[in-house]
Amino acid sequence: MTKNGVKKLQLLKDKILAEGNAINEDILKVDGFINHQVDPELMEEIAKEFAEHFKDKGITKVVTIESSGIAPAVFTARELGVPMVIFKKQPSKVLNDDLYQTVVTSFTKGTSYELTLSKKFIDASDHVLIIDDFLANGEAATGAIRLLRMAHATVAGIGILIEKSFQPGRAKLVESGIEVYSLARINKLGTDFISFIDDEPT
Amino acid sequence: MTKNGVKKLQLLKDKILAEGNAINEDILKVDGFINHQVDPELMEEIAKEFAEHFKDKGITKVVTIESSGIAPAVFTARELGVPMVIFKKQPSKVLNDDLYQTVVTSFTKGTSYELTLSKKFIDASDHVLIIDDFLANGEAATGAIRLLRMAHATVAGIGILIEKSFQPGRAKLVESGIEVYSLARINKLGTDFISFIDDEPT
Repeated sequence: MTKNGVKKLQLLKDKILAEGNAINEDILKVDGFINHQVDPELMEEIAKEFAEHFKDKGITKVVTIESSGIAPAVFTARELGVPMVIFKKQPSKVLNDDLYQTVVTSFTKGTSYELTLSKKFIDASDHVLIIDDFLANGEAATGAIRLLRMAHATVAGIGILIEKSFQPGRAKLVESGIEVYSLARINKLGTDFISFIDDEPT
Repeated sequence: MTKNGVKKLQLLKDKILAEGNAINEDILKVDGFINHQVDPELMEEIAKEFAEHFKDKGITKVVTIESSGIAPAVFTARELGVPMVIFKKQPSKVLNDDLYQTVVTSFTKGTSYELTLSKKFIDASDHVLIIDDFLANGEAATGAIRLLRMAHATVAGIGILIEKSFQPGRAKLVESGIEVYSLARINKLGTDFISFIDDEPT
């Protein structure tokens, strides 16, 4: 990571500490700068760091899952000079020949949805960077990877804003050979504290 | 509108003509550069035009409705140096004291959803620019305005990428005193043609 990268990482950590709200040991709310209100300058800085990290990987598309990943993903796509593709969530299965579809179950929320990718926009020639806001159990990310496999595309890596490192998502992805680059890695959450893994993100 | 603005508008019109797909007289699909795949450079150019047009209005927040408005809105917020706030769609009414809520019914799709705004992020001191991808019957836009009124915020105007000028959305908004600035205004659609209002957008 570059010196500049360390500074950007610090910017994100500061925001999480100042505005993040740990509801309990599992849930961190960051509505004030990612989910409900978005800080565009922070997103641009984050995007520059992702672009710097992945710039030599031959990425052809940036992919995200609607909707909180769109803001950092579209800035990252801008930095890399490639299109962004949005994987859409549908509440229930509607058969459609033009879409790749997979069910994603969120254990945290106890809900399922259909994640879909329009066949026109990803194919075997694509080498894809996935950008998302959170990584916890990794259900959305592994769902996205299943869709990319259906399209015969390859995965260049995953860029994450906030990783809950005490949950199994990262390990699952790394085990399957995927590079996970998380800007802020949280190793413990409580009602009155948020603690980060102090290592540099890898 | 500046000369540069006319060029940007032409960029969007060219994209619509090249990649837009008029399914029938009412429906235009622009999946290739707005809905499923996003062209970040085009979004940035569009954002610059919105920012140029609204720069002297004292805007404090840019607001959009998830999820296709997020990409142009976040770039516009970046250009204006203000936060972006996302109005979220919920499939059904969940009572929540922290949210302003209003029902939006889409006559085109025959569906309803609950549009919500987290109370924390907009208040009486805000003067808001609404950015959205499409304006047709204006249901989403008028829903957004209802939420802003609940928060006692004022509306600086609405920036739209593609307006279907043959549908009543624009007239409804203008009647209620809202400025609508649409970059591409379509006056007729058919299975083999898309025709624009040639006037400068106002």
